[in-house]
Amino acid sequence: MIYITRRERFNAAHRLFRPEYSDEKNLEVFGKCSNPNWHGHNYTLYVTVKGDVNPDTGFLVNLKDLSALIGKQVLEKLDHRNINLEVDFMAGKLASTENLAIGIWKELKEPISILGASLHSVKICETENNFAEYFGG
Amino acid sequence: MIYITRRERFNAAHRLFRPEYSDEKNLEVFGKCSNPNWHGHNYTLYVTVKGDVNPDTGFLVNLKDLSALIGKQVLEKLDHRNINLEVDFMAGKLASTENLAIGIWKELKEPISILGASLHSVKICETENNFAEYFGG
Amino acid sequence: MIYITRRERFNAAHRLFRPEYSDEKNLEVFGKCSNPNWHGHNYTLYVTVKGDVNPDTGFLVNLKDLSALIGKQVLEKLDHRNINLEVDFMAGKLASTENLAIGIWKELKEPISILGASLHSVKICETENNFAEYFGG
Amino acid sequence: MIYITRRERFNAAHRLFRPEYSDEKNLEVFGKCSNPNWHGHNYTLYVTVKGDVNPDTGFLVNLKDLSALIGKQVLEKLDHRNINLEVDFMAGKLASTENLAIGIWKELKEPISILGASLHSVKICETENNFAEYFGG
Amino acid sequence: MIYITRRERFNAAHRLFRPEYSDEKNLEVFGKCSNPNWHGHNYTLYVTVKGDVNPDTGFLVNLKDLSALIGKQVLEKLDHRNINLEVDFMAGKLASTENLAIGIWKELKEPISILGASLHSVKICETENNFAEYFGG
Amino acid sequence: MIYITRRERFNAAHRLFRPEYSDEKNLEVFGKCSNPNWHGHNYTLYVTVKGDVNPDTGFLVNLKDLSALIGKQVLEKLDHRNINLEVDFMAGKLASTENLAIGIWKELKEPISILGASLHSVKICETENNFAEYFGG
Repeated sequence: MIYITRRERFNAAHRLFRPEYSDEKNLEVFGKCSNPNWHGHNYTLYVTVKGDVNPDTGFLVNLKDLSALIGKQVLEKLDHRNINLEVDFMAGKLASTENLAIGIWKELKEPISILGASLHSVKICETENNFAEYFGG
Repeated sequence: MIYITRRERFNAAHRLFRPEYSDEKNLEVFGKCSNPNWHGHNYTLYVTVKGDVNPDTGFLVNLKDLSALIGKQVLEKLDHRNINLEVDFMAGKLASTENLAIGIWKELKEPISILGASLHSVKICETENNFAEYFGG
Repeated sequence: MIYITRRERFNAAHRLFRPEYSDEKNLEVFGKCSNPNWHGHNYTLYVTVKGDVNPDTGFLVNLKDLSALIGKQVLEKLDHRNINLEVDFMAGKLASTENLAIGIWKELKEPISILGASLHSVKICETENNFAEYFGG
Repeated sequence: MIYITRRERFNAAHRLFRPEYSDEKNLEVFGKCSNPNWHGHNYTLYVTVKGDVNPDTGFLVNLKDLSALIGKQVLEKLDHRNINLEVDFMAGKLASTENLAIGIWKELKEPISILGASLHSVKICETENNFAEYFGG
Repeated sequence: MIYITRRERFNAAHRLFRPEYSDEKNLEVFGKCSNPNWHGHNYTLYVTVKGDVNPDTGFLVNLKDLSALIGKQVLEKLDHRNINLEVDFMAGKLASTENLAIGIWKELKEPISILGASLHSVKICETENNFAEYFGG
Repeated sequence: MIYITRRERFNAAHRLFRPEYSDEKNLEVFGKCSNPNWHGHNYTLYVTVKGDVNPDTGFLVNLKDLSALIGKQVLEKLDHRNINLEVDFMAGKLASTENLAIGIWKELKEPISILGASLHSVKICETENNFAEYFGG
């Protein structure tokens, strides 16, 4: 079994807040990440898939196919978007790095199995100091 | 003459658009950067100052003082903010990397001279592929 | 279960040597890392914690709390310090990257459980080419 | 048990193709990576070994010994070489990142056990966006 | 005057040699870079242009246009190619980083002026340790 | 005229202090960098040289020669050393990044001219956030 990782990037706006909280309460819980006027990040996404090497190609999966699939399933929805307002799979969820990793996992799990590989992990880096990783389950 | 650079980082939302343009026209000119719901970046800022080494300290400037000055003059205004809506020195300007570099230069020019150094350049990286640098004048 | 990582940095001096060895013997075993006048590094520390997402916050842990805890338990003791002479949890140990990773693990294990997460791994990068990782046990 | 990783780098030429395919068929399957005139990469290799810390040295393994071993077993064969034409352990195999990771694993598995550690993983980065990791078995 | 830089990447094979030298002489002068079977690199290219900010857009140049121009003039010729055999503007030249920087400058100088900016510098990184920069003239 | 840069790295201990100051005064002026037990860094050094391309080799200078020269003139003196106690060209100077850049410049200026190039700049990065650059004069 081999593991292959594709790195992708997207730039998005978000805000951490609970709509039922006051601005003061949101500021207390989420700090400056609750700014009602939004802020944003250059997110870096690492998608790792696993499986057997195809003896015909030497590939687990063709990385162009994997990149195109991530583009269609994830980046088109997130890149240059507002995560709170515009991303269907994040609707009604707190726009945290944790929830983003889980949400992207759910978007990719099935389509990647169709490519002939198994999704192993989704890692999202929000800044150079903070990242979340999800392995399913 | 020696040159010293301090790197700082901030995360902000912005949008590229002209208010007198329709959404279609903004999309045509600015692409997905014109998204009315905003997007954002992890901006990296490099501030380079120049001058003579102080023989008492071996420093051109104390980098803690330089970092504190950049924090007070620039980062407090930009970090976790919406560049179009909340940053006084960007009011009425297109929130491009170019204008951001020029705007930060103007915020820093005088205060840095009070520290005993001369501002040499302001460099802003918007993504790993794009950056702007301003040397004044 | 989700995994969250916080990156922190510290700068320290150290020396690899056994006090019962002569300088020649230390040089033979530890090479130039045994220099009696010390040398030093910019260490990069990655602390990974795991657990369930808190539905109220969307967080596993608030990264500000995690960062503050690492600062108090680890960085205050190590940053701008001599690892051999000044760090209580390294006293009497060889100041290797391996022992540093294990030592930091022990400093963080209990306090992180109080934050509501479980410590998964401690990774220490001594240079861009060398790093150690400890998962406990 | 502790894990230690050594990063090494090599520059090599390669081509993805099947000799029984026509150039058109190779182009269709492997894209521009099938260019008959070759292309190349700066490959980054991460070798992770695991085991117990030696109480005499504070090391799992002396990283100079590990680096020298990787140099002799792997880099001398790959660095500034043509992977398809000149590398014995890749002969007759598709020169994919996946096969390279598996091939390097086989070259290192036994020699590393002689150093007193156990090979945990071989990771190869072909570009900043693509990497493969192999854990044996 | 503002300076804007676009980073691009390409992967290519090359060889440093003089055809009138023997293999031994080439090895003596160019070391392992003279390998007759080629080797290769992930080249990173930084193109810096300068000029005035367009008040209508806030841009010096639209970076999509600059990126497309670099793609058409330079990357299509170099990416996944053999620099010695396949790149028209390098024909008959030693495939050094220096000559590559100068060659790319000549390919870009005129087209960039048509975009309304002036080419300031071309920087090529061959490895993380080696890079060349050309400013014309 | 072309510019070529070689990156090198060294690990060293140092301390910022004036011997005629008390420990309290040194702490006040230099902060935790004045720790009497030393601290240290992974320093990254960029040496940029300029001149004309040699038509016989396609090189400004052979980077192996430049690297060997930097190794002999600078790295042997600094790597795994105490900058305050063991480095001849820093004797009696404050061990600041500024003075290190100037000191390295003086060590390299003449020998590089013998290689047939002209020293353009010496850049020293002390951390990922702080660096100094010296151009002579």
